[in-house]
Amino acid sequence: MELKEKIRVIDGFPKEGISFKDITTLVADGEAFKESIDKIAQYLKDKNVDVIVGPEARGFIFGVPVAYAMGIGFVPVRKPGKLPAETIGVEYSLEYGTDKLEMHKDAIKKGQRVAIVDDLLATGGTIEAVAKLVEQAGGEVVSMDFAIELTDLNGREKLSKYDVMSLVQYNV
Amino acid sequence: MELKEKIRVIDGFPKEGISFKDITTLVADGEAFKESIDKIAQYLKDKNVDVIVGPEARGFIFGVPVAYAMGIGFVPVRKPGKLPAETIGVEYSLEYGTDKLEMHKDAIKKGQRVAIVDDLLATGGTIEAVAKLVEQAGGEVVSMDFAIELTDLNGREKLSKYDVMSLVQYNV
Repeated sequence: MELKEKIRVIDGFPKEGISFKDITTLVADGEAFKESIDKIAQYLKDKNVDVIVGPEARGFIFGVPVAYAMGIGFVPVRKPGKLPAETIGVEYSLEYGTDKLEMHKDAIKKGQRVAIVDDLLATGGTIEAVAKLVEQAGGEVVSMDFAIELTDLNGREKLSKYDVMSLVQYNV
Repeated sequence: MELKEKIRVIDGFPKEGISFKDITTLVADGEAFKESIDKIAQYLKDKNVDVIVGPEARGFIFGVPVAYAMGIGFVPVRKPGKLPAETIGVEYSLEYGTDKLEMHKDAIKKGQRVAIVDDLLATGGTIEAVAKLVEQAGGEVVSMDFAIELTDLNGREKLSKYDVMSLVQYNV
């Protein structure tokens, strides 16, 4: 199946000049969605992954079923104030200003092997922040796995010290 | 397995007097999480469900893997402005004020049989709003399925015209 055909491209969202890759059409297609998740789980199967970590909200859409398919746990990374127990946090730069992400302090055990899953690899800023949280907690990031990669934004370069995989690639 | 033992209860979150049911400890436990998802998928298996619908962000954590396990699609319901294509919206009452949820206008096809999955059934306000979106789009809500039900808040009464199922119940 050509997964790319299941992704809807919407020009001008969230603002002019952006060609948004809408994964909801892929996720709504049971067969295409199952193939996407199975491909990521298959890729990770020999990496001795202990737990999947993903940032809200679209990261949950791919990360959680990968964890389920592999029979392992999932740890959410969320915006500030959303997680109820004690958290660790990381700030990261956006195009304008900064943002913050949090993870439960006790969510990752020292030495656990972690795969980070998200819908989209663009500049890599968000995922680099998620990796910092995992490493701060004592986990080892053994893979970063995406449904979509925007290759011209060079996220892969920023993340060059990590193992990076994506299902579907776009130039822009 | 006693799934309830895997849920962490945090008193005073998000404010004093609330005893928050933290599902992240259950989701981080691969075996307990798999059992939770399998129980919901098993419950739904003879209901001819075409698609799973769930509200962000915790609804994704249970709804998406149920869709994956059943080999069907998932449709996200999100806060305003998050979905890139044309949406339909619904307003609903909170304790103070109102909130709004959106779904892609073309996400549900007329006559599709829908199960709505979320982490928590409290007063039922959010899920009733999600059901309205599904029905507005022409779908039929054949089940509402939750990881947790707070029975004293009478959500089941508000949703009495629907089929309601939960994995774990608390009085408060």
